[in-house]
Amino acid sequence: MKRYYFEVAYDGSLFCGWQVQPEQVTVQQVIEEALTKINSNTPVFIVGCGRTDTGVHAKCSVFHTDMDLKIDVETLQFRLNKILPHSISILTIRETDDNFHARFSAKKRTYRYFIHTQKNPFKHSYSTLLEAELDMDKLNEASRLLLDTHDFTTFSKAKSDVKTHICTVFKAEWTKTEEGYQFEYAANRFLRNMVRATVGTLLLVGQNKITIEEFKAIFDSMDRNRCATSAPAQGLFLWKVEY
Amino acid sequence: MKRYYFEVAYDGSLFCGWQVQPEQVTVQQVIEEALTKINSNTPVFIVGCGRTDTGVHAKCSVFHTDMDLKIDVETLQFRLNKILPHSISILTIRETDDNFHARFSAKKRTYRYFIHTQKNPFKHSYSTLLEAELDMDKLNEASRLLLDTHDFTTFSKAKSDVKTHICTVFKAEWTKTEEGYQFEYAANRFLRNMVRATVGTLLLVGQNKITIEEFKAIFDSMDRNRCATSAPAQGLFLWKVEY
Repeated sequence: MKRYYFEVAYDGSLFCGWQVQPEQVTVQQVIEEALTKINSNTPVFIVGCGRTDTGVHAKCSVFHTDMDLKIDVETLQFRLNKILPHSISILTIRETDDNFHARFSAKKRTYRYFIHTQKNPFKHSYSTLLEAELDMDKLNEASRLLLDTHDFTTFSKAKSDVKTHICTVFKAEWTKTEEGYQFEYAANRFLRNMVRATVGTLLLVGQNKITIEEFKAIFDSMDRNRCATSAPAQGLFLWKVEY
Repeated sequence: MKRYYFEVAYDGSLFCGWQVQPEQVTVQQVIEEALTKINSNTPVFIVGCGRTDTGVHAKCSVFHTDMDLKIDVETLQFRLNKILPHSISILTIRETDDNFHARFSAKKRTYRYFIHTQKNPFKHSYSTLLEAELDMDKLNEASRLLLDTHDFTTFSKAKSDVKTHICTVFKAEWTKTEEGYQFEYAANRFLRNMVRATVGTLLLVGQNKITIEEFKAIFDSMDRNRCATSAPAQGLFLWKVEY
């Protein structure tokens, strides 16, 4: 048995998230079925770098698995991509050492959130339509409050199995794009729903519906009920994972 | 009654082309229904700059209509975009003079064809996957043969109601992109299926399956049976129309 590292892109609009769930089509399940088929129907299980929710995309996510391969990684990638639907693409496969763990070895995860400001048929599934001007200075001033190590209970889901809500944020920055706005958010770890809850609340600042001081008070309160509605899933991409 | 000029973008993957057809959902039909609703249910008919086939997209197409409007064009655009599905977006509306005709006044139409060379879940509906290296020099040398005024019978559909197959091509150029290739094709007019038939045949040159001389012989033959299979619809965009 050898351990293999995989990079994968997927269109989340067609799946009920990453993680295997009964009676739902998930990315993990579809990849495991394809690998099992290639593995002469001996079941293959994969370990992802984390979960993404229903509708969330991955530009480049990572998983690992242990297999007894009789083919080289190029052939495996070619055959996998033929079996997998158009909504999932294996970008890279390489052999890795047994200590590598897609989830626990990850040092930094980066997400990007996309907003477009004019109805656009080609952006519909990959960006969120918000017909509003955002105050970039305020957005970035509020976002800087997220940097470094904090308790992110405010922006987490109540039902969650993690022991701590402490995360270290390396980057939280808004930029203007040709069609609207983009938010880049990088941290050592992300809690469930954290990106979308953060973006939803920051958007209130950007639209001058709450002040930067109010944002800080919400963030510091560690009270989930005070955070805004989560931003929609279709604008969110897991962009990269670093080890 | 006043005449109005409209610019529109649409995702062709969700429609059976532009033109109204019985028992099919087409772009023209959906727009006419939306305008009719705004027009207090008095039927509105629109005239497009041309047709696009099933699956072909429009980055910016043009149509006109005559209406007795009681609202300004900004309000019309806002209300239309609310009624229209996410797959159609009205980009511009302005009043125009009665001599303007979306089809007959057009001087130049530009199409773009997109090819990506690696499976990509986000390109699937908007580009054609071709896992091959293309010879750019040969592609562009063959494409230059299309420039200026020629008979395009080879690249037309047998069933067609046009009187002449003569078209004047202003641009026919391939460029490399980050993910693959792009072909820009501009002419005073295009025959039915002409872009996809041209691209399909040029791709044989780009893959060294036929020579430039063979391409020229096919083009000159005016024999539809000699042209290659049309390139798939999802890679094709009507890019702009000039008047």
